[in-house]
Amino acid sequence: MRYDALPDEAVELYGSYFSQIAIRESSVVMRQVRKELVSAVESMFGRKPRVVTAKPKKGPLVLLATADDPELAGLAEIGRLKDLPRDGYIICRTEQESGGCIVAAGNSDAGVLYAAFHLLRLLQTEQGLDGLPVAEGSPNKLRMINQWDNMDGSIERGYAGQSIFYRHDKIVRDMTRIRDYARLLASVGINAISINNVNVHRTETKLIAAEWLPSVAKIADVFRGYGVKLFLSVNFASPIEIGGLQTADPLDKQVQRWWKERAEDIYRYIPDFGGFLVKADSEFRPGPFTYGRDHADGANMLADALEPFGGIVIWRCFVYNCQQDWRDRKTDRARAAYDHFLPLDGKFRDNVILQIKNGPMDFQVREPVSPLFGGLKQTNQMLELQITQEYTGQQKHVCYLVPQWKEIVGFDTYAAGEGSTVAKAVSGELNRLPLGGMAAVSNIGDDANWTGHPLAQANLYGYGRLSWNPQLTAEQITDEWVKLTFGDDPDVTETVSGMLLRSWSIYESYTAPLGVGWMVNPGHHYGPNVDGYEYSKWGTYHFADSRGIGVDRTTKTGTGYAGQYNEPVASLYGSPGTCPDELLLFFHHVPYTHRLKSGSTVIQHIYDTHFEGVVQAEQLKREWLTLEGKIDPSVFRETAERLDMQIESAVEWRDRINTYFYRMSGIPDERGRTIF
Amino acid sequence: MRYDALPDEAVELYGSYFSQIAIRESSVVMRQVRKELVSAVESMFGRKPRVVTAKPKKGPLVLLATADDPELAGLAEIGRLKDLPRDGYIICRTEQESGGCIVAAGNSDAGVLYAAFHLLRLLQTEQGLDGLPVAEGSPNKLRMINQWDNMDGSIERGYAGQSIFYRHDKIVRDMTRIRDYARLLASVGINAISINNVNVHRTETKLIAAEWLPSVAKIADVFRGYGVKLFLSVNFASPIEIGGLQTADPLDKQVQRWWKERAEDIYRYIPDFGGFLVKADSEFRPGPFTYGRDHADGANMLADALEPFGGIVIWRCFVYNCQQDWRDRKTDRARAAYDHFLPLDGKFRDNVILQIKNGPMDFQVREPVSPLFGGLKQTNQMLELQITQEYTGQQKHVCYLVPQWKEIVGFDTYAAGEGSTVAKAVSGELNRLPLGGMAAVSNIGDDANWTGHPLAQANLYGYGRLSWNPQLTAEQITDEWVKLTFGDDPDVTETVSGMLLRSWSIYESYTAPLGVGWMVNPGHHYGPNVDGYEYSKWGTYHFADSRGIGVDRTTKTGTGYAGQYNEPVASLYGSPGTCPDELLLFFHHVPYTHRLKSGSTVIQHIYDTHFEGVVQAEQLKREWLTLEGKIDPSVFRETAERLDMQIESAVEWRDRINTYFYRMSGIPDERGRTIF
Repeated sequence: MRYDALPDEAVELYGSYFSQIAIRESSVVMRQVRKELVSAVESMFGRKPRVVTAKPKKGPLVLLATADDPELAGLAEIGRLKDLPRDGYIICRTEQESGGCIVAAGNSDAGVLYAAFHLLRLLQTEQGLDGLPVAEGSPNKLRMINQWDNMDGSIERGYAGQSIFYRHDKIVRDMTRIRDYARLLASVGINAISINNVNVHRTETKLIAAEWLPSVAKIADVFRGYGVKLFLSVNFASPIEIGGLQTADPLDKQVQRWWKERAEDIYRYIPDFGGFLVKADSEFRPGPFTYGRDHADGANMLADALEPFGGIVIWRCFVYNCQQDWRDRKTDRARAAYDHFLPLDGKFRDNVILQIKNGPMDFQVREPVSPLFGGLKQTNQMLELQITQEYTGQQKHVCYLVPQWKEIVGFDTYAAGEGSTVAKAVSGELNRLPLGGMAAVSNIGDDANWTGHPLAQANLYGYGRLSWNPQLTAEQITDEWVKLTFGDDPDVTETVSGMLLRSWSIYESYTAPLGVGWMVNPGHHYGPNVDGYEYSKWGTYHFADSRGIGVDRTTKTGTGYAGQYNEPVASLYGSPGTCPDELLLFFHHVPYTHRLKSGSTVIQHIYDTHFEGVVQAEQLKREWLTLEGKIDPSVFRETAERLDMQIESAVEWRDRINTYFYRMSGIPDERGRTIF
Repeated sequence: MRYDALPDEAVELYGSYFSQIAIRESSVVMRQVRKELVSAVESMFGRKPRVVTAKPKKGPLVLLATADDPELAGLAEIGRLKDLPRDGYIICRTEQESGGCIVAAGNSDAGVLYAAFHLLRLLQTEQGLDGLPVAEGSPNKLRMINQWDNMDGSIERGYAGQSIFYRHDKIVRDMTRIRDYARLLASVGINAISINNVNVHRTETKLIAAEWLPSVAKIADVFRGYGVKLFLSVNFASPIEIGGLQTADPLDKQVQRWWKERAEDIYRYIPDFGGFLVKADSEFRPGPFTYGRDHADGANMLADALEPFGGIVIWRCFVYNCQQDWRDRKTDRARAAYDHFLPLDGKFRDNVILQIKNGPMDFQVREPVSPLFGGLKQTNQMLELQITQEYTGQQKHVCYLVPQWKEIVGFDTYAAGEGSTVAKAVSGELNRLPLGGMAAVSNIGDDANWTGHPLAQANLYGYGRLSWNPQLTAEQITDEWVKLTFGDDPDVTETVSGMLLRSWSIYESYTAPLGVGWMVNPGHHYGPNVDGYEYSKWGTYHFADSRGIGVDRTTKTGTGYAGQYNEPVASLYGSPGTCPDELLLFFHHVPYTHRLKSGSTVIQHIYDTHFEGVVQAEQLKREWLTLEGKIDPSVFRETAERLDMQIESAVEWRDRINTYFYRMSGIPDERGRTIF
């Protein structure tokens, strides 16, 4: 997020506009807008602009203002702002006669900030301003980041160093890195962040107590300047653990009072506090089940405490039996979220949002989309994605996830006929619901390059852009990121974009086949282990035997999961004849000799994709090496090293998966390649 | 190790002898003898004996003395002492006319101590003294315990609490527990102990430095009183890590001088220090390989440093490639110790002992005996056993190992014709070598009952007794321990002895089949995981596929490991037709339909033993429950709880192993029992 000097031509064209900036610093956000613009202009144009608070009689100048600013009165383009959402903005040029003015106007302070970043992006990517006017607004009210940071400095599923928020059970004093992060997030339209792990341990439970609130407020101050609201993950058992109560029963009056008092405390320190993110009755976390209550009871109790202050409760749907007996083939973890939450549809307060992971399992490289999106009709929903690459190569492998996310947001639930996409369900448009949006688990840490793998930055950028505008194509987002990161050299943009866009598919090809998932090492989840979760309590099985593999989730002979979808999806997934190849083993147990739509058998597909996946990983490396000298040397080297790790790991995946299935099936590779 | 009051009859018979004890406190050991006897007599006979230093003119009395004591002159029985080893002893009664005297005489102070314990054991187990005289001596010069304790208080592979030696990176100040342990060990004839983990980490490396030697000396003082010599595990890289040298090359003069100086330091604090135990070039520990030297170079350099003071070097043979590629089927970890050490036979100093694990792998429930015992002819050897139940149920399962150890010490290596047992190889008898014996990894911690599982105490006791006298039968040892622990009730002795003696076989039946081993969870090694080590770097594979299972270690088609044995063992193991069933899969890869000597097929054997193993585990529980009221209630309850854990774990083992092989082979159980 540095700004490079512009080429002479651009300085010539736009220099006069950017010599003068008119902005009223009516808020902390507007002050940030001014600072960002002044510093960017200095870098790009080589001189400091003059800043004025009232628009001078004539230009040229750049004017930044919110919709209600009288300076904007009478500008025709600006009229369109009222049709845009709260954070929407317009950038336009006024005619030369009125003084030559570039106007960046937003419906809110944050809108102005986004407009400013957009304007600067146009200059930095050398698109220029010929495309003006632009009018943008996000359908998603919440565009959120979830940090899984712990106060000891560790990050659950973090692959880029330690936390930038905490160290040694304390909040860091130096907020520089947090400020940089806030700016980074705002530049792609993120407007909310939860700053601690959803698994709220002992120390973090106290973040809502007087002891820590002053420090939390300091973090909130930093994010406020960038239009990002701060949320905390809370421990449902807090009334017991830090409140000295005997119960955390959501229907208990003392418990309700305790949470109301906590809300009052919090809003005293952070008047615009976002609210609570809650993982309850999930993977050993406490929740309302202990007291015979349901998730609505739990969420609504917290919602009532926050409601007077405008806060919201984001309640996660990642609820399943994690003490399953592997011998029990009736219970199906994939069914769990739907089975738990659909019966509660309509029972949640207006300021509760259910946060639903994209798939029914857990961020696998390939899963179907959660049927909850097409199921819930009267409940605010958010889509939860995982930017951090827990199951997708842990930032050692290139695995660019925007193509996966595009499939998810574009998935048609048929909830209200064709076109009922996940994007519409989570924005609230589909069911005319007041709240919604997207959340994603961050992939950053205190590594100098933020994300460990330099190319993993593209996932953070891509998530932000996609949560702002789910209609953007993967290609558009990729092109933007590559240009902003590596500049305009066509060799570089073409090569890096090509690498990124193929990377998810490559990763999929050498890991668990055909949607079955979970063939990873337990615990840390890196590297192959075909039976790693096969006999575990986690509900994650592939049932491979000498004849076949896959999970029968049909309604007729299986767990019935496929029936949780609306038609025609339920039927499509419900039959091996129509089920897409890439999800075949998620929905069906088939013989190794089953013929795929691709024409290959299942076993030959496994062999072919695994051999081919390694070839492709090696190809990624070769392509990267062609960029030597065109990329910053340290980024070039770091990426090359990670590509080596990726190849080594891909070879291990190939050999273990192929050997496992060869040993199991006894069927040799048609092409006679080496299987051990 | 408490002494109960004797029945009236015994008091009547022996009370007069034990009213007076004659002993000269010529050493710290003799003082311990006096203390032990006085306190035991008080407990058993209900009154304090009179202690005199010179033998009074007439008895009755108990006389304790070393062979050279003039008081013994002229006693005929005592003459036999000269035919016994250094720690040998004789207990006898002299005729009534000379005053009625019980004499316990040893070739050394420790011999007297062992005689005293023997005498007290006779009384406590109500065998009386009719069996006198007894003459005992151990063929094993070293009867050693290895503690795998770390200074942070943890114990590698410890299942009975924290270390009794260390806490928070310091040596404990209160030596009470250590003293109790020393007494416990001496009571079964242990005469050497290494007090820190063979994996010598950063802090423990400093135990040989001036900083820690005063505290180590205090521990040595405690053990000295019980005739137990203290050893330290050392880090081969100490000259670098704490000596400030650039190298640890054993041929480097500075390195040699550094170790000599360390030896001088140590002997200044501990004049009878035993020596060093060394794990070098093994599982990432440093060693002579770094400098292009061999194990003899490394061991001899340390031996030269210790030699002037009478110290010895115990050098472990647990050396193998722990970075093996699972795809490489030529390399065989089982071969490694023999391949590394046999070429060095005869090259070690006289004060070096090679410590050899019982099997070629690592303390599995079933392995063949290491061929090194029959191979080395000119090198001092020690057998290393593992009392702590790393792979044998971790003191949650009853797994009494004396029957396994008996098979090991009784194994005929045929090194010098029939009868060349491991017992003879390690005592030095077979090759007329000066040093030898047995070592075992301890199973104790700071749990109140020492070993977690109350019945696991039998393994510690049994090891001590067996290392003293490898000719004792498992039944003899078991009977002694049960009587000393639970008293003389025939229901109790019969039930508990029966449980113990079957327990190893039961544990074997529901875990990895037919000697193949390693089907455990990686890292902690508890519970089933058939492929847990199958694709690892540890050289531990079973190669199961849809057709068969096992490791071909024959000379013709396999790794050649079987050829490391002398004839006729090499041929016996080398053919599936003659290889004992219980080791079949260790030596051969066979189809599931291969018929065992038992008449069963391999696959049916797997199913049968696993179903039967659980039935047997449940039977253990039922038998134990019949003892309610006859056993101390807390021991009864603790053991019952552990038996429940064992059954639960056995069920998991049964189902996972059976399911794995059913899925893999596709062959159903002949008896149609439930396989998942």
